Amino acid sequence: MAVSTSSKPMRDQVKEYITKLQSEIISALEAIDTQDGSKFVNDRWERSEGGYGQSSILTGGTHIEKAGVNISVVHGKLPPPAIKQMRADHEGLPWTEATTSLPFFAGGLSLVIHPRRPEAPTVHANYRYFEITEEQTPEEKASGQPAKILAWWFGGGSDLTPSYLFEEDAKHFHSTLKAACDPFGDALYPAFKTWCDEYFYIPHRKESRGIGGIFFDDLSLHAHKRLPSGTRPTNLEEIWAFVRSCGDSFIPSYIPILQRRIHPVEGLEKPLEDKSESEERKRRWQLLRRGRYVEFNLVYDRGTKFGLMTPGARVESILMSLPETARWEYCSDLGEEEGTREKEIMDVLKNPREWV
Amino acid sequence: MAVSTSSKPMRDQVKEYITKLQSEIISALEAIDTQDGSKFVNDRWERSEGGYGQSSILTGGTHIEKAGVNISVVHGKLPPPAIKQMRADHEGLPWTEATTSLPFFAGGLSLVIHPRRPEAPTVHANYRYFEITEEQTPEEKASGQPAKILAWWFGGGSDLTPSYLFEEDAKHFHSTLKAACDPFGDALYPAFKTWCDEYFYIPHRKESRGIGGIFFDDLSLHAHKRLPSGTRPTNLEEIWAFVRSCGDSFIPSYIPILQRRIHPVEGLEKPLEDKSESEERKRRWQLLRRGRYVEFNLVYDRGTKFGLMTPGARVESILMSLPETARWEYCSDLGEEEGTREKEIMDVLKNPREWV
Repeated sequence: MAVSTSSKPMRDQVKEYITKLQSEIISALEAIDTQDGSKFVNDRWERSEGGYGQSSILTGGTHIEKAGVNISVVHGKLPPPAIKQMRADHEGLPWTEATTSLPFFAGGLSLVIHPRRPEAPTVHANYRYFEITEEQTPEEKASGQPAKILAWWFGGGSDLTPSYLFEEDAKHFHSTLKAACDPFGDALYPAFKTWCDEYFYIPHRKESRGIGGIFFDDLSLHAHKRLPSGTRPTNLEEIWAFVRSCGDSFIPSYIPILQRRIHPVEGLEKPLEDKSESEERKRRWQLLRRGRYVEFNLVYDRGTKFGLMTPGARVESILMSLPETARWEYCSDLGEEEGTREKEIMDVLKNPREWV
Repeated sequence: MAVSTSSKPMRDQVKEYITKLQSEIISALEAIDTQDGSKFVNDRWERSEGGYGQSSILTGGTHIEKAGVNISVVHGKLPPPAIKQMRADHEGLPWTEATTSLPFFAGGLSLVIHPRRPEAPTVHANYRYFEITEEQTPEEKASGQPAKILAWWFGGGSDLTPSYLFEEDAKHFHSTLKAACDPFGDALYPAFKTWCDEYFYIPHRKESRGIGGIFFDDLSLHAHKRLPSGTRPTNLEEIWAFVRSCGDSFIPSYIPILQRRIHPVEGLEKPLEDKSESEERKRRWQLLRRGRYVEFNLVYDRGTKFGLMTPGARVESILMSLPETARWEYCSDLGEEEGTREKEIMDVLKNPREWV
């Protein structure tokens, strides 16, 4: 049995979808950042263990300081300890002492955009499909039949990290994601919004990385710890349509925000009068917030940590998410003073809000 | 029994020594960075669980971009799981199922200096003393007798992180450390130099953080896994003298290097002719190297990781080690091209050398 909603196996449908989505997102970003003809540079890489990736990177753009929109489609063998660990969240996986390595497939799109203006928020999105199959005999392989799928699931999400708070941006971002989720069940957006707030949290700073969005994992036909039964997509067709709905929402969720924030906002900074000084202050604050982004990604993000520990992993693709520049000050005064725009966003990062 | 080489308990001797060493190092740095009267700012903090710290921070100096020279003298209770874990390296520690929390004392000096010039290397040093004692009865406490010490050990080291290689600097730094170690046994410098190369290694980059120095831990009267018996200080007096010898070597190991590197070096960069372009390139490379410094500290450094996970830890003091600014480029060309000064240091970071 192949997991499929059409004549095509799901892994092929995923590959087609993320390839198309990557291309659409790149076009949307290039349409904004064309002042000096900034273009994404494509970097295709092969994985010696199986599969490939296509990293598209923009640096030094007029409005985009650093962005990566990447897809990867890899396959290989999952060793027994990894299978054992995955069983907790995936009932379908077999496990006996005799279980040997099993073939896996993983396909996904991952993006991070760090704009230049301090008013323009950083955004991150990631959508992925994972599949574990039975080992085929040489005869089965030769027959061209797809391997029997033992477990499959989807994961993903998208979240916004502003340096300065614009409530209309937060509302727009969350509303767009909610509208993408709602057709598939009212419980999805609230559950995945909460999960996002919990996941993108920096314990040692006691603050969130940003103002959230949605985050989900392990979405399959099996019971899900975060979703009451009856409140969620119940078949593969619906789950796959839900994931595409989220993926398709990326451009409308972010591009309008980027468009209205790529120019300086007058009077943004309350305590400073002098324009050049206020520009310096805004940039300094943005770089301090990027320092926190680095702290989260290197210390807590599971994808980054898992990636860096994986032998043969492509480090440049994993660390593509880091900003071009980040800053650390000892006991910085920025973000502490009541009545400032920096303190305003800190209050939100310390106490996540409902935006819809 | 108190651990002591004089009438004073060792914890008091350590406190006096690190306080004096902190003051001397600050004076030596201020003597270099006085052009605009840059001064270290003292920040004393109390730990609610017991003890205090004195952070001395310099930012925005003429020659020093960011520096922290900190001491901390803390005490509290060590929970049973921590004691159990420490037993592996410390024979003296008791352990039964009935072991309860035990009092500990930790005193140490920790410093990181990030100079402004790309030619001037970053340096790090840390010397610390750890003690675990028996719980005293109220009567014993009232009598003023010190608690019985169950285990004690010293740890420390110092290492250099240049962005550009100057062989004379590497030789000077290592020679000075070796001269501080040698009076206490020929085996110390080679063992601790190797340990340093192993410790300050970034596996995902397959490169060292810098050109090393010395690193040691768990130095006590018990057998040490890295030191053959008969090749090391065999009593407390000698161990304490060894640690002070290392601590005292910091100023002569680093200050002469800083002094000769605080001005631009002409012709440092082989492939670029234009001066302003070469300054920009050197700065860019320095910031990329600082990005690696951040990666090591946040992903691998035990002190940082342990510190961030500790409830009530002082995050600003732990992350004081991070540079003011760091940079990440996707697949940067710098450091790749044969014949460049950037590739020269990369070769050393990929293949650590003997410098003495």
